[in-house]
Amino acid sequence: MAAALDEFDRIARFFAPLAAGFPGALGLTDDAALVDAGIGRELVVTTDALVAGVHFRSGDPPDLVARKALRVSLSDLAAMGAEPICYTLAAILPATVDEAWLAAFVRGLAADQAEFGIVLAGGDSVKTPGPATLSVTAIGRVEAGRALRRSGARPGDRVYVSGTVGDGALGLAVLEGRLADDAEGTLAGRYLLPRPRLALGRALVDKASAAIDVSDGLVADLGHIAATSGVRITIEAERVPLSPAARAALVADPRLIDAILAGGDDYELAFTSTEALPDALASTPIACIGRVEAGSGVTVLDRQGRPVTLSAGGYTHF
Amino acid sequence: MAAALDEFDRIARFFAPLAAGFPGALGLTDDAALVDAGIGRELVVTTDALVAGVHFRSGDPPDLVARKALRVSLSDLAAMGAEPICYTLAAILPATVDEAWLAAFVRGLAADQAEFGIVLAGGDSVKTPGPATLSVTAIGRVEAGRALRRSGARPGDRVYVSGTVGDGALGLAVLEGRLADDAEGTLAGRYLLPRPRLALGRALVDKASAAIDVSDGLVADLGHIAATSGVRITIEAERVPLSPAARAALVADPRLIDAILAGGDDYELAFTSTEALPDALASTPIACIGRVEAGSGVTVLDRQGRPVTLSAGGYTHF
Repeated sequence: MAAALDEFDRIARFFAPLAAGFPGALGLTDDAALVDAGIGRELVVTTDALVAGVHFRSGDPPDLVARKALRVSLSDLAAMGAEPICYTLAAILPATVDEAWLAAFVRGLAADQAEFGIVLAGGDSVKTPGPATLSVTAIGRVEAGRALRRSGARPGDRVYVSGTVGDGALGLAVLEGRLADDAEGTLAGRYLLPRPRLALGRALVDKASAAIDVSDGLVADLGHIAATSGVRITIEAERVPLSPAARAALVADPRLIDAILAGGDDYELAFTSTEALPDALASTPIACIGRVEAGSGVTVLDRQGRPVTLSAGGYTHF
Repeated sequence: MAAALDEFDRIARFFAPLAAGFPGALGLTDDAALVDAGIGRELVVTTDALVAGVHFRSGDPPDLVARKALRVSLSDLAAMGAEPICYTLAAILPATVDEAWLAAFVRGLAADQAEFGIVLAGGDSVKTPGPATLSVTAIGRVEAGRALRRSGARPGDRVYVSGTVGDGALGLAVLEGRLADDAEGTLAGRYLLPRPRLALGRALVDKASAAIDVSDGLVADLGHIAATSGVRITIEAERVPLSPAARAALVADPRLIDAILAGGDDYELAFTSTEALPDALASTPIACIGRVEAGSGVTVLDRQGRPVTLSAGGYTHF
């Protein structure tokens, strides 16, 4: 019975196996976890919270919810050029969550732990009368002083983005019935299961002058780099890489350019570099989409070089 | 207008000032924070979640809610013998939270940052349709290999507890109208604003064989040490230190012994040591309340040396 499963049973049965192999987790039986950065490294720490009905849909498969929660934080590590070490999880769950849900949730975490080389180190398991809420704190390491930052973009730098942009926002539209599905389910899949660009982030250490992950929307996130670096960023809409599914949707409805450039949930890396970079780094496709200039803000140019006005500046959180 | 304050304004106005003075927080403008343990140290990481209506009352003053959220995690650092460095905060708040609430909440965090030497390093600010929920990840440091653990208690060790036990549980009873208030408001105050025993925790490094903070209840938490160490712990109820307010309440109603020994929320340190320790360490009163033996579980003896049966084994989380 789910009701009979208290915090300690729940941790021992479901979560402790996720901490196997990480001595610093102390088997999840102590008050805290121990983490060693290693000589010449510093730790990179990021916390994200996801709420059912806000950041994921209540009916989403629990294994995908778990993986998305973890991947959102891994994407922040990627944006700093860090390699993952461990994470803590606050699982704040309604009493209606049963063992089947938890088992699937934990399977999702285990799959991504194996895929991305990260291990559960600790956390908390509490009940809520509200929606399921997950807070992940991911901890990684980077060579001391060499973390990628948002503040290093300088006029003359090139602007790049990895992979394809817009699939996340279009995928949400598909899942919400506002857009027809593509045959392969690419768009919905990208929304449900983003891919943190960890290998690319590592490869960008000493190559990128600034970096961020695209969570709020390409324009908004480039805006964060522009604001933090004190520069203007100009991109050309035509050069933003699109998946075949996003391209087809855009051809059918050109107004989708707003959702593509400003919609968020892509979890690609956007970054600047003084160097001209190849078409791929660490087996990850990258595309040059613009340049850094003196000034402030983000300007998007159309095919004719005219500034485009987007109807939304990116997903704005609470 | 609260509704006009988006995540970025909220972070810039309310939370970024809390990160001043900690370079690794990067002004809260990057994807993650940078933390350096220092040579010969390892990091201690703990995550706790608090939900309105479960771990605090919805009408509690926001500054006290903030301080309690931080102190619960600081207490975990204390139990590991760590000194605080920084923390991340996931502030998961309903749309009804207004600027006055947030301002008071942040004042509470600022007060405790100054008192305990810890600084905000990052986090997330999201909305929820549910109750206000706070998840704090506190990060401290300890000499490598010397963190206090739950697993080191050995037969023959003495069992100690700091301060006074039971005030937290009786304080909750006062706040819920189940128990008459004491004249000084000691009990309610202890529940609302626990005191993490950081100085004592530091002093116990190399002195305690095992340690834990009393959050679930003295008997349950000693049970965690007993289980993790593979020993039996026997304590004498008469030797458990009580505040004058708790003593008066117990004299008036002897059945309160259950709440005192099993009620939780004390945030004292319970620990074992091979040494006979003085009455205070790091200006913190401590009391020897029992001994470690071969076996398993926790036994509470009354004045005549007979085992006492408590009606509850401690606060059990979800």
